[in-house]
Amino acid sequence: MDQHRLKSLLEQVREGSVGIDDALAQMRHMPFEDLGFAKVDHHRAIRHGMPEVIFGKGKSPEHVLGIASRVLEQSGNLLATRTEPAAAELVKQKFPEAEYFPLSGVLRVWRDRSMHGKGTIAVVCAGTSDIPVAEEAQLTAEIMGNQVEAISDIGVAGIHRLMANRERLAQARVAVVCAGMEGALPSAVGGLVGCPVIAVPTSIGYGASFHGLAALLGMLNSCSSNVTVVNIDNGFGGGYVASLINRL
Amino acid sequence: MDQHRLKSLLEQVREGSVGIDDALAQMRHMPFEDLGFAKVDHHRAIRHGMPEVIFGKGKSPEHVLGIASRVLEQSGNLLATRTEPAAAELVKQKFPEAEYFPLSGVLRVWRDRSMHGKGTIAVVCAGTSDIPVAEEAQLTAEIMGNQVEAISDIGVAGIHRLMANRERLAQARVAVVCAGMEGALPSAVGGLVGCPVIAVPTSIGYGASFHGLAALLGMLNSCSSNVTVVNIDNGFGGGYVASLINRL
Amino acid sequence: MDQHRLKSLLEQVREGSVGIDDALAQMRHMPFEDLGFAKVDHHRAIRHGMPEVIFGKGKSPEHVLGIASRVLEQSGNLLATRTEPAAAELVKQKFPEAEYFPLSGVLRVWRDRSMHGKGTIAVVCAGTSDIPVAEEAQLTAEIMGNQVEAISDIGVAGIHRLMANRERLAQARVAVVCAGMEGALPSAVGGLVGCPVIAVPTSIGYGASFHGLAALLGMLNSCSSNVTVVNIDNGFGGGYVASLINRL
Amino acid sequence: MDQHRLKSLLEQVREGSVGIDDALAQMRHMPFEDLGFAKVDHHRAIRHGMPEVIFGKGKSPEHVLGIASRVLEQSGNLLATRTEPAAAELVKQKFPEAEYFPLSGVLRVWRDRSMHGKGTIAVVCAGTSDIPVAEEAQLTAEIMGNQVEAISDIGVAGIHRLMANRERLAQARVAVVCAGMEGALPSAVGGLVGCPVIAVPTSIGYGASFHGLAALLGMLNSCSSNVTVVNIDNGFGGGYVASLINRL
Amino acid sequence: MDQHRLKSLLEQVREGSVGIDDALAQMRHMPFEDLGFAKVDHHRAIRHGMPEVIFGKGKSPEHVLGIASRVLEQSGNLLATRTEPAAAELVKQKFPEAEYFPLSGVLRVWRDRSMHGKGTIAVVCAGTSDIPVAEEAQLTAEIMGNQVEAISDIGVAGIHRLMANRERLAQARVAVVCAGMEGALPSAVGGLVGCPVIAVPTSIGYGASFHGLAALLGMLNSCSSNVTVVNIDNGFGGGYVASLINRL
Amino acid sequence: MDQHRLKSLLEQVREGSVGIDDALAQMRHMPFEDLGFAKVDHHRAIRHGMPEVIFGKGKSPEHVLGIASRVLEQSGNLLATRTEPAAAELVKQKFPEAEYFPLSGVLRVWRDRSMHGKGTIAVVCAGTSDIPVAEEAQLTAEIMGNQVEAISDIGVAGIHRLMANRERLAQARVAVVCAGMEGALPSAVGGLVGCPVIAVPTSIGYGASFHGLAALLGMLNSCSSNVTVVNIDNGFGGGYVASLINRL
Amino acid sequence: MDQHRLKSLLEQVREGSVGIDDALAQMRHMPFEDLGFAKVDHHRAIRHGMPEVIFGKGKSPEHVLGIASRVLEQSGNLLATRTEPAAAELVKQKFPEAEYFPLSGVLRVWRDRSMHGKGTIAVVCAGTSDIPVAEEAQLTAEIMGNQVEAISDIGVAGIHRLMANRERLAQARVAVVCAGMEGALPSAVGGLVGCPVIAVPTSIGYGASFHGLAALLGMLNSCSSNVTVVNIDNGFGGGYVASLINRL
Amino acid sequence: MDQHRLKSLLEQVREGSVGIDDALAQMRHMPFEDLGFAKVDHHRAIRHGMPEVIFGKGKSPEHVLGIASRVLEQSGNLLATRTEPAAAELVKQKFPEAEYFPLSGVLRVWRDRSMHGKGTIAVVCAGTSDIPVAEEAQLTAEIMGNQVEAISDIGVAGIHRLMANRERLAQARVAVVCAGMEGALPSAVGGLVGCPVIAVPTSIGYGASFHGLAALLGMLNSCSSNVTVVNIDNGFGGGYVASLINRL
Repeated sequence: MDQHRLKSLLEQVREGSVGIDDALAQMRHMPFEDLGFAKVDHHRAIRHGMPEVIFGKGKSPEHVLGIASRVLEQSGNLLATRTEPAAAELVKQKFPEAEYFPLSGVLRVWRDRSMHGKGTIAVVCAGTSDIPVAEEAQLTAEIMGNQVEAISDIGVAGIHRLMANRERLAQARVAVVCAGMEGALPSAVGGLVGCPVIAVPTSIGYGASFHGLAALLGMLNSCSSNVTVVNIDNGFGGGYVASLINRL
Repeated sequence: MDQHRLKSLLEQVREGSVGIDDALAQMRHMPFEDLGFAKVDHHRAIRHGMPEVIFGKGKSPEHVLGIASRVLEQSGNLLATRTEPAAAELVKQKFPEAEYFPLSGVLRVWRDRSMHGKGTIAVVCAGTSDIPVAEEAQLTAEIMGNQVEAISDIGVAGIHRLMANRERLAQARVAVVCAGMEGALPSAVGGLVGCPVIAVPTSIGYGASFHGLAALLGMLNSCSSNVTVVNIDNGFGGGYVASLINRL
Repeated sequence: MDQHRLKSLLEQVREGSVGIDDALAQMRHMPFEDLGFAKVDHHRAIRHGMPEVIFGKGKSPEHVLGIASRVLEQSGNLLATRTEPAAAELVKQKFPEAEYFPLSGVLRVWRDRSMHGKGTIAVVCAGTSDIPVAEEAQLTAEIMGNQVEAISDIGVAGIHRLMANRERLAQARVAVVCAGMEGALPSAVGGLVGCPVIAVPTSIGYGASFHGLAALLGMLNSCSSNVTVVNIDNGFGGGYVASLINRL
Repeated sequence: MDQHRLKSLLEQVREGSVGIDDALAQMRHMPFEDLGFAKVDHHRAIRHGMPEVIFGKGKSPEHVLGIASRVLEQSGNLLATRTEPAAAELVKQKFPEAEYFPLSGVLRVWRDRSMHGKGTIAVVCAGTSDIPVAEEAQLTAEIMGNQVEAISDIGVAGIHRLMANRERLAQARVAVVCAGMEGALPSAVGGLVGCPVIAVPTSIGYGASFHGLAALLGMLNSCSSNVTVVNIDNGFGGGYVASLINRL
Repeated sequence: MDQHRLKSLLEQVREGSVGIDDALAQMRHMPFEDLGFAKVDHHRAIRHGMPEVIFGKGKSPEHVLGIASRVLEQSGNLLATRTEPAAAELVKQKFPEAEYFPLSGVLRVWRDRSMHGKGTIAVVCAGTSDIPVAEEAQLTAEIMGNQVEAISDIGVAGIHRLMANRERLAQARVAVVCAGMEGALPSAVGGLVGCPVIAVPTSIGYGASFHGLAALLGMLNSCSSNVTVVNIDNGFGGGYVASLINRL
Repeated sequence: MDQHRLKSLLEQVREGSVGIDDALAQMRHMPFEDLGFAKVDHHRAIRHGMPEVIFGKGKSPEHVLGIASRVLEQSGNLLATRTEPAAAELVKQKFPEAEYFPLSGVLRVWRDRSMHGKGTIAVVCAGTSDIPVAEEAQLTAEIMGNQVEAISDIGVAGIHRLMANRERLAQARVAVVCAGMEGALPSAVGGLVGCPVIAVPTSIGYGASFHGLAALLGMLNSCSSNVTVVNIDNGFGGGYVASLINRL
Repeated sequence: MDQHRLKSLLEQVREGSVGIDDALAQMRHMPFEDLGFAKVDHHRAIRHGMPEVIFGKGKSPEHVLGIASRVLEQSGNLLATRTEPAAAELVKQKFPEAEYFPLSGVLRVWRDRSMHGKGTIAVVCAGTSDIPVAEEAQLTAEIMGNQVEAISDIGVAGIHRLMANRERLAQARVAVVCAGMEGALPSAVGGLVGCPVIAVPTSIGYGASFHGLAALLGMLNSCSSNVTVVNIDNGFGGGYVASLINRL
Repeated sequence: MDQHRLKSLLEQVREGSVGIDDALAQMRHMPFEDLGFAKVDHHRAIRHGMPEVIFGKGKSPEHVLGIASRVLEQSGNLLATRTEPAAAELVKQKFPEAEYFPLSGVLRVWRDRSMHGKGTIAVVCAGTSDIPVAEEAQLTAEIMGNQVEAISDIGVAGIHRLMANRERLAQARVAVVCAGMEGALPSAVGGLVGCPVIAVPTSIGYGASFHGLAALLGMLNSCSSNVTVVNIDNGFGGGYVASLINRL
């Protein structure tokens, strides 16, 4: 799948230094390893500039540790989302520099702190209850090498708060905006700034928020054309795409 | 059911001027008439200060005319919503002063133009596509005796437009805010003004607006506490409740 | 954002008593403070006549106490909804006059008991299971300075119960009606009275109530034109808007 | 499947008057005929006291005529619902006594008018727009041999109208109640009467009625325990079950 | 509301033995008592032949005991559904003859065991997981004075089981059929018998049953015309309506 | 992608008869052609034993003809589903042996009638309104070389009809069962036979069928373990998978 | 219902060795036993080649043991899904060879290990979180006598992983593909292989997966025509149908 | 709102060259004009580098022409989406260089063809039915000054097609991927490339696509972390955001 490697392989075939069956086998030998219970994709680091991210939910502490160890053998950094405290504890025993953020459940080993982003990423949230999701976005963006400007509690019901932060928003190269309830903040931010806005609906709200559905639909129907949307509570996704954009 | 009429009826029973069976019959004889196909509720004019409103959709032109005639015999004004042009034509033949508004399908006879509202009602809409719903709200509020301030096309994606209309909004005693798509305008207006805001979701929008569901959920989850919601595209309901409030 | 303050600021600029950069800074210096984790909006008291309300769910007891302390420094009253007992306990330790209502989770400090409402607000609920939501509405309306008439357990399946309370309902200037299951009570109340009715769907019911969706849809489709709706279980919202209306 | 017929068949087997293969074949020879495109179930007349009912929607006029002819060969009466005018026209050419009701699309041949019901069936509707569905219920109940008391336009927003019809309702042995919008009428009727109430949600209403979903959910969540529900706009089903009950 | 009592009251007014204000007060004095937290409706026993039923969910044990005591003062029997064990314990301490059924959460005092039903009610369930709902239906039907024939575990995937119970089903005057998953049993039973079938969807099933929604929709769309539907898991409602029908 | 072709290509590279860049190009030269507006996948015929099927909906007659021509150049047979009459007409002008089935909108050129299936496929439908979907399944299965046994109008409400067809069903190697409304027929058939059952929900039904959603959910929740489900109205998919299974 | 047994019974009737009432009774005496709380269907083993499977959820440990004992008296094997550890413990005490798989909750007694499948069944899952569902499918397929090839963690976001397993997939006679989130893996696998693919949506995912709804809809709308779908998390169903197909 | 303009305004106030009321008025005089029926936002061109886009649906041809004329007075280019042919005709009469694309309904005046994007935008679609949406994306991206690489008909069911286009995809700086049905293509593309992917669900599909809901949910749940989503059929939004990103 790697065009250059394939070409050189074909050359080896021509030269006879590699047999045909070996060539076939190598062509099938993809750059990922098989741990038995999960295939760690080291190749992704090349494509996206980010090692395999561990989605911790529903994985046993031992599984998390196993994957984490393998990732850290090949990469300086580790990001695990939705991790249970028990798994975090186990990883921290082996990797003491690991940080655990209980609000968002993020577990992070951040050794390689080189910067890849060309500007600032604004990570904004509408209310204090949205902070866990925004934190996941911020930690993701940071470990991917970005300067983050965090702005919280500026929902549309108090437009003057939003206006007061206008300048900070205007300086961002891309914005991640987390909001629950009616999810209107991305539209408002999107109307103020010229950069791309990644909207992250959160599951915060009274009954008819339907666990984030109201915010999700609101954001998808945003009348600001610079808004795109990721999954409910998916702070990681928001931080990830913002990092890709900021790297351009 | 009318406390006073009931009391006087009981007095007549005591005095013997009304027999018991007659009394029973009268007590059951409610203040509405039976047209056969629809019961026109003249009593409502007393309770809500508004004659029976005709919901024109799915009624034949003859039905509309029949009810309209009966209403106009007892009341100076007539309001029919969602009326087909054919029904409007038929009513205008008999009542030439009737006005028909094809955008919203409102048919109106507005003879009695006395004012009942104590302040101004702001009728706001987010985009030009929401105008038919806003028009229904405005025409309803006007026939119920209110001064209406109509403000259109000030969606949240252009917050400066909203800000430019802030003063006009601030002078309203109650606001009706119509919006489709993500339905965020009521929240933003609600954050700017101190008065009650009636939010009317409209069915305008791209695919995931789901015919107004996104706007509806957005408004129900508004983080502005002064917002209440009526049905999708129900401009009439918005204008009606605003009128009741403005009368207080 | 305050027209008068802005005008006087411009005058100071003209007089030279305030420099341009200071003016720009002041214009951006909105009337809210930054606590780091949440921006308390004291300005709202001026706009809506009500200090910032704390939505307690998902906030740590320390957060709740922090915001509560700040609010009470500037305002005589405090209202916190959906508060956990632990947070309530912490606040009561510092502010012994705080009351906690475990059914609804409302935490209230009610020092300033001046009346602002011009009439009575009826707070009605359909069944005993709806009482927590109705209580939230009642406590909100009271702290906002209103006389409340609480009427419970008069669902439409026993219309005679509703009829027996007709007179009490008729005396209200605005009604908040809480109901789960099919949510039909607001329509019935709305047909009896001439005042605005704020309908609050509750999440009470058997399976196909879908956590309040049935009641919500029922209320949005009310055939009584004086009914508007707030979010599921949002007793606070119902009490809030009723207070705004009763103040007119 | 017919216990007696089966017993006598076994007796014939024992006596040798019927061979085993013939017996097997007869046991499989059910009392329905095969028209090729549809199996007309004459047996149903015995079980439910009603010949096969034709659901006309999506059937070509020729299909409708074909089934109708076969039904009328064996039964005095015919009921076809949701019939297109073209199909009705075709059937009327062959069976001039056929009646067509364009509002509901019911096509009826009513030769055998013997009474089977022991009391009166009340067929009630909330608004004039619900009349097509109520008509389908009424025509079904009539052809199944019942006395029908039709009451229209008594929605809950005008409770006094409902109260005025209380006596008529109280005399019914079973009630079919059709309502759109919030679908609250069955609950209210159910609270007034002691008999079973069949609720028929209709697809009438503004946006958030979602084509009858709001009414359907409302009725399923009725707080009146004597209410059961059939499909949206299924007047036929309402009339059918009411007839079965009235026959007991 | 009681025609005779009202007539005699009017006679007393005529005779002067009751004053007008007293009459008005009495007319408003409905046959229910006010316990403060819940209005017990003794009048319902007259209308539906069943005392007030207590919906135990979300009520404190003390509330349940309070209402239960009041009901048992005026009626021989008590039915409480969805009762927590703690509430059941408390009631059993005061009323030792009370029975508690932990599977369904029904609490029952069954002193008056007179029969009111004219035939047998079949209470059928599709799988063993549906038994709690079927039990609620059975206990309701029994306390309302009916002979119940309980048939369990005859889902449509094993049609021969259903066929084997055909005769028992055929002898019922009305059937209550409880089923989760795809909810097809009521259709199948409805096709076998000629009597009314009350379908009760249960919340049992794998993921896409969506807590009973699949069964509910299946039953509403039943191609057997003798099927009506009640709320998800509402065994009580099924038993209640079946009792009303069996009494005819 | 073709293992053998790849191996032989590598051999040619080794032998030098193919250059490396040519090899790379060939490896990327997939067995599909580019028509500009649509890529016809002739390779699929090898994998699935079926040429590219044209989904006619929303394609212009010219597009359909263009793709059809290309398909018929390489394959004896053609299957186009959901074709408009105009497109069918155009194709028939060029390929007179094409058959058009207006009920289902299937357009078929069936030159190669060799048999691939090892047994019979039963294509069953519940009611006459489901015939268009069943027809699409049948025509698909036939062109893929199968013997089809079509059985119609045997819904669960008349179980004896189903029972009467039991033997025919039992002889099938795989069954495709199409049903709308509550979609219970696949469960019932699945309980009778031991072979795999492909359930096809149809969009036929009254209001709460929600365009096939009720049937779809019913089938997904089937208590018969041999049932799998395809998309609503997707007769093609049902016939396709049945053919694959029958070929084993 | 067993054609041969029925024929021989009729012969006995003819010969007089069985009386008519006995014959009727036997014909009704289906091949299932009545345990009181659940009818164990031994007959199913004949039809589907698989003894009754116990759905453990919501059943008490004693119930599970009771049914398990009865099954094991007549069959060598036992499969119980969604079993609680307590029930598993109880069964293992009586049947020590029982295996319990805590991830999936499967309880299995696998004495009869004869092979019935003619090829290999591939059981594939997209991510490690889908393993419990895939395990249920695998254990089911194994106990039904199949060779299983388990392939995990090859989601579409890493297409090279999928490609690397292409050969293993191509050798399967039928594939079961389990995936949560967007559920795209069955489409991708279906495009690679020519055999039938049973798609099993899992409830794994962030917010807008809505407990498997997203995956379910994705699979139903698969553009690969060889894909059919079972219920969310229904690994058992997937393994079951795959076994039926592999047996052909 | 423009920081610099505001500063210079304040300076004018200090200098006395602008009076205070004039300053207030100017501050409120936003850079948009009021056409009466719609406010054209010329300011947006500065913020987003794109003039006001006209959403043509539901606007009369005259409205479209009016707005278009105003836009073209101040900007060289015009983009109108979802335009009816009649409106396009009217605009073309006045602006002959206007192009109309009937498939997507886009109306475009493209005078200023300067390039703003720094790389190529790939606009990909899964099937030929998705072309109208992809066209809207492409035309938007082009008028915003981008090089577009359009790739169509490479759905996941034919992964080899996707693989064959891998290189073209890899060269894009950002990709817009349009897909209906299960919407899996963005995940697959996202797994192949390292750049941001904007997913556009389309409303194309069989029944259970629910007008694009299945594709929308699929994309939101994408397991490729570089995917964000816009509204159903919102090709414009996809092209717009891609343009903003490509400009960075």
